[in-house]
Amino acid sequence: MKELFIKETITYDGRQLSSHWAYRNFGIQGESIVSFRGPCRVELTEMVDIKDVLSNSPIFSTDMLHFIIEHFDLDLEKTIVRQRLLIATLKDIITEKSGAVLSRYGDDLFFQNRKLTVSIATLTPVSTMIHTGVNVTGKDAPVPAIGLAEIGLDPEEIEDVGRSLLSEYVKEYEQIKMARCKVRGVR
Amino acid sequence: MKELFIKETITYDGRQLSSHWAYRNFGIQGESIVSFRGPCRVELTEMVDIKDVLSNSPIFSTDMLHFIIEHFDLDLEKTIVRQRLLIATLKDIITEKSGAVLSRYGDDLFFQNRKLTVSIATLTPVSTMIHTGVNVTGKDAPVPAIGLAEIGLDPEEIEDVGRSLLSEYVKEYEQIKMARCKVRGVR
Amino acid sequence: MKELFIKETITYDGRQLSSHWAYRNFGIQGESIVSFRGPCRVELTEMVDIKDVLSNSPIFSTDMLHFIIEHFDLDLEKTIVRQRLLIATLKDIITEKSGAVLSRYGDDLFFQNRKLTVSIATLTPVSTMIHTGVNVTGKDAPVPAIGLAEIGLDPEEIEDVGRSLLSEYVKEYEQIKMARCKVRGVR
Amino acid sequence: MKELFIKETITYDGRQLSSHWAYRNFGIQGESIVSFRGPCRVELTEMVDIKDVLSNSPIFSTDMLHFIIEHFDLDLEKTIVRQRLLIATLKDIITEKSGAVLSRYGDDLFFQNRKLTVSIATLTPVSTMIHTGVNVTGKDAPVPAIGLAEIGLDPEEIEDVGRSLLSEYVKEYEQIKMARCKVRGVR
Amino acid sequence: MKELFIKETITYDGRQLSSHWAYRNFGIQGESIVSFRGPCRVELTEMVDIKDVLSNSPIFSTDMLHFIIEHFDLDLEKTIVRQRLLIATLKDIITEKSGAVLSRYGDDLFFQNRKLTVSIATLTPVSTMIHTGVNVTGKDAPVPAIGLAEIGLDPEEIEDVGRSLLSEYVKEYEQIKMARCKVRGVR
Amino acid sequence: MKELFIKETITYDGRQLSSHWAYRNFGIQGESIVSFRGPCRVELTEMVDIKDVLSNSPIFSTDMLHFIIEHFDLDLEKTIVRQRLLIATLKDIITEKSGAVLSRYGDDLFFQNRKLTVSIATLTPVSTMIHTGVNVTGKDAPVPAIGLAEIGLDPEEIEDVGRSLLSEYVKEYEQIKMARCKVRGVR
Repeated sequence: MKELFIKETITYDGRQLSSHWAYRNFGIQGESIVSFRGPCRVELTEMVDIKDVLSNSPIFSTDMLHFIIEHFDLDLEKTIVRQRLLIATLKDIITEKSGAVLSRYGDDLFFQNRKLTVSIATLTPVSTMIHTGVNVTGKDAPVPAIGLAEIGLDPEEIEDVGRSLLSEYVKEYEQIKMARCKVRGVR
Repeated sequence: MKELFIKETITYDGRQLSSHWAYRNFGIQGESIVSFRGPCRVELTEMVDIKDVLSNSPIFSTDMLHFIIEHFDLDLEKTIVRQRLLIATLKDIITEKSGAVLSRYGDDLFFQNRKLTVSIATLTPVSTMIHTGVNVTGKDAPVPAIGLAEIGLDPEEIEDVGRSLLSEYVKEYEQIKMARCKVRGVR
Repeated sequence: MKELFIKETITYDGRQLSSHWAYRNFGIQGESIVSFRGPCRVELTEMVDIKDVLSNSPIFSTDMLHFIIEHFDLDLEKTIVRQRLLIATLKDIITEKSGAVLSRYGDDLFFQNRKLTVSIATLTPVSTMIHTGVNVTGKDAPVPAIGLAEIGLDPEEIEDVGRSLLSEYVKEYEQIKMARCKVRGVR
Repeated sequence: MKELFIKETITYDGRQLSSHWAYRNFGIQGESIVSFRGPCRVELTEMVDIKDVLSNSPIFSTDMLHFIIEHFDLDLEKTIVRQRLLIATLKDIITEKSGAVLSRYGDDLFFQNRKLTVSIATLTPVSTMIHTGVNVTGKDAPVPAIGLAEIGLDPEEIEDVGRSLLSEYVKEYEQIKMARCKVRGVR
Repeated sequence: MKELFIKETITYDGRQLSSHWAYRNFGIQGESIVSFRGPCRVELTEMVDIKDVLSNSPIFSTDMLHFIIEHFDLDLEKTIVRQRLLIATLKDIITEKSGAVLSRYGDDLFFQNRKLTVSIATLTPVSTMIHTGVNVTGKDAPVPAIGLAEIGLDPEEIEDVGRSLLSEYVKEYEQIKMARCKVRGVR
Repeated sequence: MKELFIKETITYDGRQLSSHWAYRNFGIQGESIVSFRGPCRVELTEMVDIKDVLSNSPIFSTDMLHFIIEHFDLDLEKTIVRQRLLIATLKDIITEKSGAVLSRYGDDLFFQNRKLTVSIATLTPVSTMIHTGVNVTGKDAPVPAIGLAEIGLDPEEIEDVGRSLLSEYVKEYEQIKMARCKVRGVR
């Protein structure tokens, strides 16, 4: 599994959540996790969470740290478990860097009842994908929100959060692959 | 998915990690998570982690809080991801109840470089299973270890850790099943 | 698995056979079986059975009792077996309520060589789905057909057929899930 | 998928429910359904239904019409759905030949609240298998039971039931395989 | 699995690589391998190999022997292994008929460093598919290429190559299905 | 995927075809292909090919070049396709090194109607495995056989065949994994 942190600003508008996005844009073939920073504006027509569409809940943030993950298997449930583990890992990284105590509810992180993240996992015809966005600022968000800047991280530390999650996720992925290969079956 | 906390002491010796253990012993049919407290003594012949067998590393603890999970599908990799998420959830519960700051490395929890847990995931002919044991005391352990008692939890709080993880795991499992059903596919 | 009988008339035109139809229209998230009554008119462009498209066989009925089922797994063969079991269950329900002796050939029911039902199973990007329509009247059908009214059921009894199949299918689905969890493997 | 009716009497004692039984004993390689007639005596140690083991419910019949099915895939849930469809098909065949009106509850057939059949589906290391036994006589059974002889079928008709189910099951299996290949996916 | 050699010329333009192509055009329902001869012109918008799209490598040949294969399962990796085996089999057939010694690199065949074939495997919503094209002439190709005519095969022999691969692939497919059913599991 | 050539002589007696053999004996964790040279004597009780057991065909050779492969997934059919591709690759390597023209029939290689290889693929509780043995000498074999020595290879060249197949198999495996990740789906 490959990782890439992109320094340039990219606006997440939902179209990044499509198969081979990392390959088509950055030449990264195979399973990957990519991070970048930028605004988040997903139109209803691009949203994949039907719950959000039904409740007409736009996804919007002026500045986020984004993660795009692609796994080339077709088990959405497995990728949702991976997504939850990603969020738990992200929580630990942010707490370690900022000292802020966060709460995880499913695929969301909160700080003092204010929302820090958005996340979705879905299927493409050839893979499963995850998008996670972490607010840099919670201002102008459609719900009570908070951002990494507001809990005290500077731009360099925010990039560190991104790079740390990339390497932790890849490391854990490789460990899981290996753990698969060290146990005998039981009755 | 069903949960059960057993008040009586049970010695974990590896034979609990076999298919339908909860059904055969407690009448719980279907996917389940069960918790109990008791010593842990796994003979080499019962060990499923070949790494431990090769390094001749016995698994031993005088007192542990145990969890036994059974999922009736056959994807071991998926159950290893579930196991990591279980450990991440356990970490949050212990920190919340004790204030102790723990570190997760894969499927292990540590407090100040002392090992708090053991865990394994494996396949049966009909299901996948997880065992996780949390030291109540780290005394007499074969490696530098610590226990829930030593980080300040009394017996009632230890049972609370068990009950909290049961309900959190079941709740998250149900949420994951539902999250599977709310996203449209993308290109 | 959830069930819903809709009292209002809905025309089945093929667009109901798309992922999350029950969720998007009736707020039912997860696996579901939904029943309603209404005409059936499927244009060639909406038809999913290529055999029918090749033979230019339109699907048309002035009045039908419909069933829409969605399972969130991607094994079409398994859902075709479920479809056959659904039809066998429907046959028993109609016979019990009407006394009419029906014959099942694959996914079709017949009464005295006249066709009573249409049915198809297919894949969406995130799920598998089944549509089954039972003629209320066989008049104006493109093939020799018969309907529930013509074998003696009144509107209330027809609705009863719908409600009975909903509850039988859900009950059997839950039993199958549990039966999965009660057998040991053999050599 | 291959079918075989064996004229000689075989006692079903549970050991027939093991992988490649048809291949090892009758040279039938591949997916198969085999039928024969004979007593049924399954010791607790051979029983695969843990529910029966827990309730200490022996499986016994002095004379049964047996069916052994093997599918070389590992999805037990799918084979349980196949088992239910098999029982529904068996019901229709018996009713057609005897006129007796039977009820199906899951994987069991009843005539006037007396049990006509036993059935189980399970996993081997390489396949999934089904055993279904139909009482020829319900005498001496451990529960209120009835047999094909008691609902009026003579030995030749009983063999006909066996041969009919063999050919119906194989035919339906082939149709299901083909139905898999005639539908386009939908959104 | 069914085979068909089509005598008439067909231009391969990528649209043949879509689900049920053999069924919709030639009435062949189920898994199939079809062969025909004709030019090859795939526009960038029809290309499925993103590597070729990224490198702007058109696929073009004035005359090819084509193979289109469809398997109704959704495991792309398995179908890529099948594709490699197909190419290895094709290599043996061409060598046997022409005496030319070819080299296989992955899914490509070469004769003295000149490319003889193109091939791709992909997913449809209901199946996996393979296209393989063998140059009849390497003239006008975008890379150094060679064709069956240039290594000495006449039109009849070229058709023989097609027919031989059809029957070899179908035979091997059936053998593989049977080999699945003749081994016991091991520890 | 890892490769290992073992210089010491090992007798293949069937017990090498068990899960984690490479890990337990050589510390190689994960998917692997291992080669070594030695006699081959498989007792009937260790044989996994039921066809051979039924025909009472012992597997015996005084000297063979062996390959043991383990993949940690449970799709036996996929591993049988991999086995055929392995044999096709082996054929090319031997021909290149010896000039001998071989024929492949399924999972067997022949030289002038004399058998050069044996091979089997099977399931363990946690993986699928392949054994392939290539005769060094065909003397004393139970069927008309030939060996690598008899077609002119010296001990060093025989080891080269082993090492070449190791690296070719691993290379192709990695290419297949990557090929999985470069195609868009089609309709």
